[in-house]
Amino acid sequence: MNYRYLPKINTKNLKRLNLAALDLLAQESRDFLLKMVAQKGGHLASNLGVVELTIAYHYVFDSPKDKIIWDVGHQCYVHKMLTGRYASFAGLRSLNGISGFPKRKESEHDMFDTGHSSTSISAALGMALARDYQKDNYHVTAVIGDGSMTGGMAFEALNHAGRSSTNLTVILNDNDMSISANVGALSEYLNKVRTAPRYYRTKAGTKSALEMLPGMGKNTIKAINRVKSSIKQLVVPGMLFEELGFTYLGPIDGHNLQQLIEALELSKMSKGPVLLHVLTEKGKGYDLAEENPSRFHGTGPFNLATGHPLKKSESQFTQAFSRSMLLLAEEEENLVALTAAMPDGTGLSPFAKVHPKRFFDVAIAEQHGVSLAAGMATQGLFPVVAIYSTFLQRGFDQVITDIALQELPVVFVLDRAGLVGEDGETHHGVFDLSYLRMIPNLTLMAPVHPNEVEPLLRYALSLRAPVALRFPKALYHPESMEIKHKKPNSIEEPQLLFSAQKKFVIATGPIANSAALALEALAQDGLNDLGLILIRSIKPLHEDILYQYLSEAEEIITLEENSVMGGLSAAINEFLNKAKIKARVKSLGIPDRFISQGKATELLEILNLDEKGLKQEFKDFFAQKNIIGKG
Amino acid sequence: MNYRYLPKINTKNLKRLNLAALDLLAQESRDFLLKMVAQKGGHLASNLGVVELTIAYHYVFDSPKDKIIWDVGHQCYVHKMLTGRYASFAGLRSLNGISGFPKRKESEHDMFDTGHSSTSISAALGMALARDYQKDNYHVTAVIGDGSMTGGMAFEALNHAGRSSTNLTVILNDNDMSISANVGALSEYLNKVRTAPRYYRTKAGTKSALEMLPGMGKNTIKAINRVKSSIKQLVVPGMLFEELGFTYLGPIDGHNLQQLIEALELSKMSKGPVLLHVLTEKGKGYDLAEENPSRFHGTGPFNLATGHPLKKSESQFTQAFSRSMLLLAEEEENLVALTAAMPDGTGLSPFAKVHPKRFFDVAIAEQHGVSLAAGMATQGLFPVVAIYSTFLQRGFDQVITDIALQELPVVFVLDRAGLVGEDGETHHGVFDLSYLRMIPNLTLMAPVHPNEVEPLLRYALSLRAPVALRFPKALYHPESMEIKHKKPNSIEEPQLLFSAQKKFVIATGPIANSAALALEALAQDGLNDLGLILIRSIKPLHEDILYQYLSEAEEIITLEENSVMGGLSAAINEFLNKAKIKARVKSLGIPDRFISQGKATELLEILNLDEKGLKQEFKDFFAQKNIIGKG
Repeated sequence: MNYRYLPKINTKNLKRLNLAALDLLAQESRDFLLKMVAQKGGHLASNLGVVELTIAYHYVFDSPKDKIIWDVGHQCYVHKMLTGRYASFAGLRSLNGISGFPKRKESEHDMFDTGHSSTSISAALGMALARDYQKDNYHVTAVIGDGSMTGGMAFEALNHAGRSSTNLTVILNDNDMSISANVGALSEYLNKVRTAPRYYRTKAGTKSALEMLPGMGKNTIKAINRVKSSIKQLVVPGMLFEELGFTYLGPIDGHNLQQLIEALELSKMSKGPVLLHVLTEKGKGYDLAEENPSRFHGTGPFNLATGHPLKKSESQFTQAFSRSMLLLAEEEENLVALTAAMPDGTGLSPFAKVHPKRFFDVAIAEQHGVSLAAGMATQGLFPVVAIYSTFLQRGFDQVITDIALQELPVVFVLDRAGLVGEDGETHHGVFDLSYLRMIPNLTLMAPVHPNEVEPLLRYALSLRAPVALRFPKALYHPESMEIKHKKPNSIEEPQLLFSAQKKFVIATGPIANSAALALEALAQDGLNDLGLILIRSIKPLHEDILYQYLSEAEEIITLEENSVMGGLSAAINEFLNKAKIKARVKSLGIPDRFISQGKATELLEILNLDEKGLKQEFKDFFAQKNIIGKG
Repeated sequence: MNYRYLPKINTKNLKRLNLAALDLLAQESRDFLLKMVAQKGGHLASNLGVVELTIAYHYVFDSPKDKIIWDVGHQCYVHKMLTGRYASFAGLRSLNGISGFPKRKESEHDMFDTGHSSTSISAALGMALARDYQKDNYHVTAVIGDGSMTGGMAFEALNHAGRSSTNLTVILNDNDMSISANVGALSEYLNKVRTAPRYYRTKAGTKSALEMLPGMGKNTIKAINRVKSSIKQLVVPGMLFEELGFTYLGPIDGHNLQQLIEALELSKMSKGPVLLHVLTEKGKGYDLAEENPSRFHGTGPFNLATGHPLKKSESQFTQAFSRSMLLLAEEEENLVALTAAMPDGTGLSPFAKVHPKRFFDVAIAEQHGVSLAAGMATQGLFPVVAIYSTFLQRGFDQVITDIALQELPVVFVLDRAGLVGEDGETHHGVFDLSYLRMIPNLTLMAPVHPNEVEPLLRYALSLRAPVALRFPKALYHPESMEIKHKKPNSIEEPQLLFSAQKKFVIATGPIANSAALALEALAQDGLNDLGLILIRSIKPLHEDILYQYLSEAEEIITLEENSVMGGLSAAINEFLNKAKIKARVKSLGIPDRFISQGKATELLEILNLDEKGLKQEFKDFFAQKNIIGKG
């Protein structure tokens, strides 16, 4: 397909196109999306769903004066194409390339960085209130999916916005689908609305009109309003949002440009908060994605004709967890599994299929998920809660007060712990060792190799206490045969892999594989007095064993794929102080800044955390003249 | 008043009382509540509001077989009186006494520990689902206030429960009031419902009845249901909850025992999730509290006749913040203030009165509050977000991705950082230095003395970057004149108070006052080579200055009123490693366990963190023979 409009489109010239031309622009956008994501990987289905909506938005509104916030943000590709970044798509989600999410630093058209769900209404309301206070006059719009709407903070923001009288448009992008099939009463409610007769108002409301009639007392108006409310329910399907103080418009066809433009114009003129209900289809225009939007939510490069991935997905840790759950479910009938809208990503789908009564998908609602598990655990169940590392940040308070404080037997399984690669800053799971280690009563563990997931999970369940287990999806470090085959005495205790007296690398997580290989290479270079200690239990450390290894240590490197602040590094420092071991210590890990997107292997190289980088770091540190006592 | 029933009441004999006797029990309970809280301090208004509800619950249900979860939990006093703890009230909220919140370890009638808002529906649903899976048959009830209902996780739980078919009662304890006046659309909605004609159903529903009629096709039923929906709106005020899949009962008078008992019986018989809307009055039965429930939400001991506190409230830090905000608002017109339902507690009420357009109370919605501030900050406002230390745990993820990642100029002010005293485990603010320090781009500060709040806040705002400032409400450490009068060169840099070469105490926060006094005492005892370094900026540490002080350090104690894991202690260890300073280090602070209730001064004494304890700790450590090099 030759593109007539797309390559030169911007928010100015887009406004001069007629409906037919806009339609062609939509076709071009969809074609480009497909080619680009097939080649680079990324979020496909959600972007195909908002092609017309994005075009209509930029036709009606004036970005960047008017502001749009994309909830979660993975549906922003078309927005990026239309706002001057068409030519940058070759670098989509790559190191130094454009992000797959909105980034304020990337363009003045990206108003707010998103990545985690359900923040858009809050951010948009913040902008609207700032505008009101500063007496400015731009329009603010949040675009939020029906899946993200289940996140509690979206409701918190609706509650606040609905009471305010600020001008604000919330577009409910309703595709009956978050990342996986949607759950909850809201979803059921929206289903009902979807099939109701379509209607949207041509005036801002009827209440004020009533009040302008002569001879209408307050009580009469009240009475009429009550009747009107009930009549409205017959014709206005969005009662729930009206109850929350929003003017409801819709539902409208999200793939009909004319309807979209009219509705957006209406929302622009409306006073107060407006909820515009738009029905879209995930994967629209690509048959394979329409049929299986979950497969094309986030995808690696794939063959456009067949939809097949170009290379086999590697998810050794996730798969190991998936298998372990099926196994352990047979052994313990009170084992149940929870996830927050991620049955596929966490590997729980097979469990859900085999044990539907023992599987609970709570929707995008991490806070609720954690406390739900707490409630279950008080009654004798043993919940395993699978939530990605960065998303569990949403349930942080609940882990502390509902799980740890009450010492309930809940096992958290944090997938995507470590560098996630192309999703970038908002998704790297590099904080969990720090934010979980500080919580009393919580055991914190990490496998070094996928084949340790099962014994660690089994051990975690045996504790009948709060445990968190963290690992990445894939073993993107090269596999160390030494680690794979040398079994530890007990899975929870520190394991000395290469024995030594004075110089040690202490590592946790799969990065220990790279460390092992680096140490093997250094040994061949003659540096053969370096030990490697594997830490699978970051908390507790099992200090007695550690002391046996380290009592004469003089030089120590700690290594973790987590912030160097507060995780393994801090744990080892505390141990050394308590044990009165006076060693020189260097901490390797994720530095104290947000890490950009890029392939995990590229990022590891940049951070000097791949085998080569580690070899150099080890050599520099251990070969350095010992300067103890020199101050 | 002589008590006829209260002293011997339990969940068994309560069921044998008639309505008149139950009424007398309510009077006795109210009388006892008043006397007890006037004497001990605690939560009064909320407990006076649920006297009849609690009695009715235990009349209808069979605790502990049936489970009740009290949201937030501060309204559990009557529940405790009725479940065998009447005689324990002398120890209410005291060290080793009964808690002011439900505690599973305290009684089998306390089903779930609460303290933070909006968790009850999740926990209750977890229990209900566990019951269903285990084919057990008890009833589960959550009691949640209209204020707590604004917390997003309550909505997450409603959304989940509404779609399930599990038997569950959610009692909406609607007193039109959270801790302060309620905000948001939900509150407005409930106001509307409150004044609607009262109605509750006598059958579980009409839909199934319709379906049982012969000759009714699916489409006919659909059509009828739509009409019925609209009719129901006329008579059933709880449409919003019905839309979310709940059977709505109410609103009913929460001080009418007979109505309450009938409604609870109905909820017990109902199938599926039920929302029972109960209207109560905070402070009911005590005129002064009815008039000013906010004053009697949480109170110290007071005079029953006048309502006046027995001693002057000490809140030097809160008051300093309160004054500073008024001052800084004059200087910077883009300064705005946010809080999450805590205008009084955070000291923002005076600001709200003077600058109503610059003050935003987001309700109990910390997540939304953080991201709302982020949105405002993108448009040139400078939000100061005042949220208690443990409640900001709710907005943890948003602080990371919406504030720190985007480097937005938002200042978080964390009151109640440190030991809060009588509220106990769930409220001690002893984690924030750890969970905030690990966040990139965030500056983290703490005043040592109340008179430093203003310069620190001024400095924080001048950074135009993410900052968190933490302090307790009161200076419960004895004031050090040395600290009060010796001004630092610059407020953000480490300050050497007592100069030394080799031995140092490094302290942050007001506990440095106790340290200073302990060091003064030790100097008089002849130990006069000990330095004291005050750290007001935990991050960044201003390492160059610190290095000047510590370059020859051999023995260091770190001191903080925060977990010893991940806060100042970790920061100093990291610094020493980087600076290659080989000192012996001991970390003093809050140990890695949850700290019970008790007066802050009592807890400090137990933890060896008061002046006397610190003196001993310092002496033991510094006077010990230096063992460097001995391994």
